This record gives sequence, structure tokens and C-alpha cells, in this order.
Amino acid sequence: MATEKKTLKAFGWAARDSSCVFSPFNFTRRASEEHDVTIKILYCGICHSDLHLARNEVGLPVSYPLVPGHEIAGEVIETGPKVSKFRPGDKAGVGCFVRSCGTCENCEQDLESYCSRSVFTYGGIDYDGAATHGGYSDVIVVPERYVFRMPESLPLHAAAPLLCAGITVYSPMRYFGLDRPGLHVGVVGLGGLGHVAVRFAKAMGMKVTVISTSPEKEKEAVEVFGADRFIVSRNEELMKAATGSMDGIIDTVAGWHPVAPLIELLKAHGKLVALGAAAEPWQVPPIALLIGRKLVAGSAAGGMKETQEMLDFAAAHGITAEVEIIPMDYVNAAMDRLARGDVRYRFVIDIANTLKAN
Amino acid sequence: MATEKKTLKAFGWAARDSSCVFSPFNFTRRASEEHDVTIKILYCGICHSDLHLARNEVGLPVSYPLVPGHEIAGEVIETGPKVSKFRPGDKAGVGCFVRSCGTCENCEQDLESYCSRSVFTYGGIDYDGAATHGGYSDVIVVPERYVFRMPESLPLHAAAPLLCAGITVYSPMRYFGLDRPGLHVGVVGLGGLGHVAVRFAKAMGMKVTVISTSPEKEKEAVEVFGADRFIVSRNEELMKAATGSMDGIIDTVAGWHPVAPLIELLKAHGKLVALGAAAEPWQVPPIALLIGRKLVAGSAAGGMKETQEMLDFAAAHGITAEVEIIPMDYVNAAMDRLARGDVRYRFVIDIANTLKAN
Repeated sequence: MATEKKTLKAFGWAARDSSCVFSPFNFTRRASEEHDVTIKILYCGICHSDLHLARNEVGLPVSYPLVPGHEIAGEVIETGPKVSKFRPGDKAGVGCFVRSCGTCENCEQDLESYCSRSVFTYGGIDYDGAATHGGYSDVIVVPERYVFRMPESLPLHAAAPLLCAGITVYSPMRYFGLDRPGLHVGVVGLGGLGHVAVRFAKAMGMKVTVISTSPEKEKEAVEVFGADRFIVSRNEELMKAATGSMDGIIDTVAGWHPVAPLIELLKAHGKLVALGAAAEPWQVPPIALLIGRKLVAGSAAGGMKETQEMLDFAAAHGITAEVEIIPMDYVNAAMDRLARGDVRYRFVIDIANTLKAN
Repeated sequence: MATEKKTLKAFGWAARDSSCVFSPFNFTRRASEEHDVTIKILYCGICHSDLHLARNEVGLPVSYPLVPGHEIAGEVIETGPKVSKFRPGDKAGVGCFVRSCGTCENCEQDLESYCSRSVFTYGGIDYDGAATHGGYSDVIVVPERYVFRMPESLPLHAAAPLLCAGITVYSPMRYFGLDRPGLHVGVVGLGGLGHVAVRFAKAMGMKVTVISTSPEKEKEAVEVFGADRFIVSRNEELMKAATGSMDGIIDTVAGWHPVAPLIELLKAHGKLVALGAAAEPWQVPPIALLIGRKLVAGSAAGGMKETQEMLDFAAAHGITAEVEIIPMDYVNAAMDRLARGDVRYRFVIDIANTLKAN
């Protein structure tokens, strides 16, 4: 008897090639298996990676059609028989990963994002050989391990960006010990990641200085996000006055920029964590590291356990992202604005109300 | 009644200018004060910094005559009335620092080497305004806090280099957690620092791979120093085979060299600690750090407490440096050989027997 694999009809918007023009796209997802959670997608944040990948700008192999989206918030509509943490009706989230090996050193330490066999939520190849598609779509099927409980107290649309932007800044704060009251932390760039970093840092009791190229963001940095200080990075006098004052810096700027002036802002034993993946190498002066035992590090999202912890921390402190909610058919305009930096501070697609099947 | 400040006659060899030719030099040191220890110098190691500073190659202000030497081992001949840890006849050592403020955050945490007011053993300006002179001389006066007990079980001449080379590799191993049995650590460069790093790493129970440009050092690395593996850094095949295999790397190479291939050798969460102070910046690819949450750091010597701990650890494990003992008047030839990398593995001047007063 031939077994026919059941599939699930899905519908979303996809980029067809690196021209990055999105249009409606019908596709299928695998049917739910015993550990799977099926989620009706309600909201999906637009991450800068979505733009980079859709434009094929990062030097990774990209296959089209590409349905991006890894800041997914929705409602559980079906659960496999072995799912224990979720049931239909639950608010659920999906972040950057939908699979990992589960048995390597990283997986065993709840560091799935560093598993060499982890599968990206979109633009990846799942273990069954199928291309993965993300949250610019109506439904997704994900193994329970990679699904998060979305806190009831946070509005879903504003919590969705925490699943990438949030964990990407939260995880290095925890790992590098930049999470203790009394520390002074710098946040470079006040965009999708940066504004959430300020909120987490303040909730952890730290003094926060925003370092930005945009003087017009000062008022919002201080009054809305709660930063203690604001430095325009091109103002040499302000930069000099801040020399040796910070315990750590979370650098959220995606493009290449000089890091040596940032290292100067660190105290001895200070840590610069750079989250952007520019193609050009950082220029790091050895003597600047050596004299103060400083370090420059990278960090990529966080594991599943830590992401849930981050969501719960966000709920406890009322932290969400500042978002501009857009309809699905605005995505092309949104991508253009994102490329120009014209977003405060995260686009979130209202999937449930605006994604209309052909 | 006019008070005349007493001084102590001293004699050593000094470089008179950046031509780096050493010749006999009579000078004075301050008289011992209540917390001071006066040490008759018996041996002094030649550190690569001695050459760099004497040649004025590091971009720091250098004043001549310059009497280098910060790997000083000798015998206590006098102690001030408030000295409690030493008495005449004790074996004592002096490393890179002879003063620090004692009250800043770093000093309070026994991290004197990161005190912004710390005074280098030579080439520095002490708090009384006098230039400091190092161990290429017969006697030195140092506050008790900056003097170490030299373990009885280690020969003084072979233990002297531990006071700079030893602590410089030991301190980052401890700080960055590269000190646990089962970890795999790479040591780049098998020179004065590198060979001691291998010995410490093995004593800590780690697997050690030496990475070197000199294939002829393999036998000694493995048979004499106990390394587990040896990789010729120019052998792309060997480098590739070691990709993602190391928890950390102690990079002891002084001059500029590419660090990106070393970052590739690290596992996720791996740490590259570079101890050289090249003038040109490291080229650090952001994506290489980001994907595996890796870090690149510097480190400079260690505090007094940790240096004593290092000496005691060395004694417990019988660790010393491999040295070539030379007479004082060989110092110019030794500097030439050091510049060519022709030393296995540390020159140590036999001060007591070969430094003859004019």
C-alpha cells in the first residue's frame, strides 16, 4: 500500500528573486507530526535580515521563492499527540530556528542557535529536504521545542519582534554579564534591536548610554526608552568625554563601521558585543584590547530556553518593541523604507487581517 | 634642619638611545622606605618588550638611559620596618610593575596591572618623579606589595621568566576560563611566552595544540614541552583539519599576523586571546565572531595576587622556562639574536656573577 504524505496548504508573500519584489505565493507545508505545533500566524515582524536575504546580500545561498519572517506570533490551532506544552487556543511564537539536531553539545546546553545542524525558520532546508518558509504567511508547523509561549500580558503584535530583535540583544547581555545593576552599558544604534536593548538594559538596572549617528533620536531615546545619556557618535568631544566609562557595549549597527572608537569607550575588562554581520572585517587595534583586557565578540540569537526566559522577563517588566503595524500588501514599500532606515522601530505585518488568499 | 634624601648607589647596563646599544651605567635608586624591600638581583630575564622599548618601537615615550628588565629574581638584603612578608635572605622576585595607586577599582580587586596609575618596573616614572630602572642592574628597591616570594623548589634563573612571560599567559587562561581539564587550547607561537603557555596548559589538564610557522619546532613542542599536537600555520590542509576544534587560543606572537584563520580553529563560544601588541589592527570578520559567539581579547600581565598564585602553581607542577643563561656583557649580542628569533626560549642574564662594577 503506497503511503501518501499529507501536506498542509499555506499562503503567503514571497520574493521571487534578488530584486526583492514580494508577491502572493501559494505553497504547502508538511502535515503536523506527533511533536508538532500548528500555528495560525497573526503577526510577523520584519527583521533587517529579511531584507538582506531577500536581496541576496549576505553571501549565503538563497533559494527563491523566499517567504521571510522569523518574528512570528499567532495562535495554536493543532497539536501533535506528543505535544505537552501547548494546546489549541494558546498564544505561541516562533523565532529564528525551527529545528536543530537535539543531541550535540550546543543542543544539550540549550544553545540550539549554535547547533551546526540548526534550520533557519525561512531560507533553510529542513531535515526532510524541504525549503523552510517563514512568517509572511498564514500558517506554520513547528516542532514543540522551537515554539514559545507568548505572555498573556503583552500585546502579540508588539511582542513578536522580541523573538529575533529581543533575544538577539538579551542573550549577549546575559552571556557576557552585562546584566547587573550598577553597570554602565552603551547601546550603539537605535533601531529595531537598539531600542529593545535600551529597554532590557534599563529593566536590568543598568545605566544606559545610546550612541547614534542621528541626533534627532536623542529625545525619544531618553524620554520614551529611558536611556540615561545620548552620544552622537560623530561628535568627537562627546566621544572623548565618555572614554573609559562603559562596562560593555551592545553594538546593533548592521553595516560596517569603525569599532576602535567604541573600544575606547570601554573601561578595563570591558566588552564590545557586535551583532551586525558586515562583510568587511572589523579593524581592531591589538594594543586597545591588551591594555585593558578588553574583548570584542559576536553573538547570534539565543537558545530556546533563554528565549522563553527573555519573553517572561519582558512580560515581567512590560517590555515590547515599538512597532508600526502594516498590511501585507505594504511589504514592498516597507522594505524600501527599511533600506533607508525609515522605520520607528519595527514593522510588523498584520497577517490575520490583511493577508488575503488569492 | 635641611633633610637630605638618602639614595642607594646602583649599577647596571643601559641603552643610551634607540640604537639599542647597551653599556655600563652608574645610577642611584631611592633609599628604602618603611614598606620597601631591597633586593640584590641575581638573575634577570630578557623579555621581547625590552628590545621593543630600547629600540623605541612601540610608540610609547621612552627616555634614556634605559635600564630594562622586569623578570627579576634575587635575594632580599634589607626590609623596611613595616614589611611583613619578607626578611633578609629570602628569595624574591619582581615583575612588570613596582607601584600602583592601591585604591582604585582595579587595585582593590588585585588587578594592579590594569590600574591607570601603575608604574612599569623600568621606563616608567615613579610617584616621586624619578625614572624607574629595571633588572639589568645589581639592586632594586620595591614596595612589598609588588614583590613575590620565589618558590624554593624552582631554580631562580629558570623561574625568573615566569614573572612576565609566565603570568602573561597564565592570567588570561584563568580569566577566560581556559584552565579546565578536557578543554582543547591552541598556543600560537613557541617562543618565550608560548613554551611556558604549553607547560601551564598541560599542567591544567588540557589538550594542547601548538600552532607555529616553524616546522622544526615540532619535536621539541611535543617531546620537551608536552604538546599533544603541532600545526604548521602555513599548511592549509592541517589548518583546515583543525577547524572548529579548539575551546580557546593563546596567541603569543608579537608581530602582526592574520587572526581570521585562528578564529576558524575555534569551536562555538571559543576565545582567541592575543597577547602581542602589533601596531597594525587585527582584521576580524564580524560573521566569524557572530555565528559561533566567539570573542577576540587582549590581556596584559596579571595582578600581584595572581602572579604569586602562578608562581606557586608553577612550583607545584615543576614548571619553569627553558633558558639560555648569558653574561651581562653578552646583552648586545643577545638582543640581536632575539630580534632574529634565535633564542630557545628565554635569555636570562646571570647578574650576580657577571655584572662587574666599573
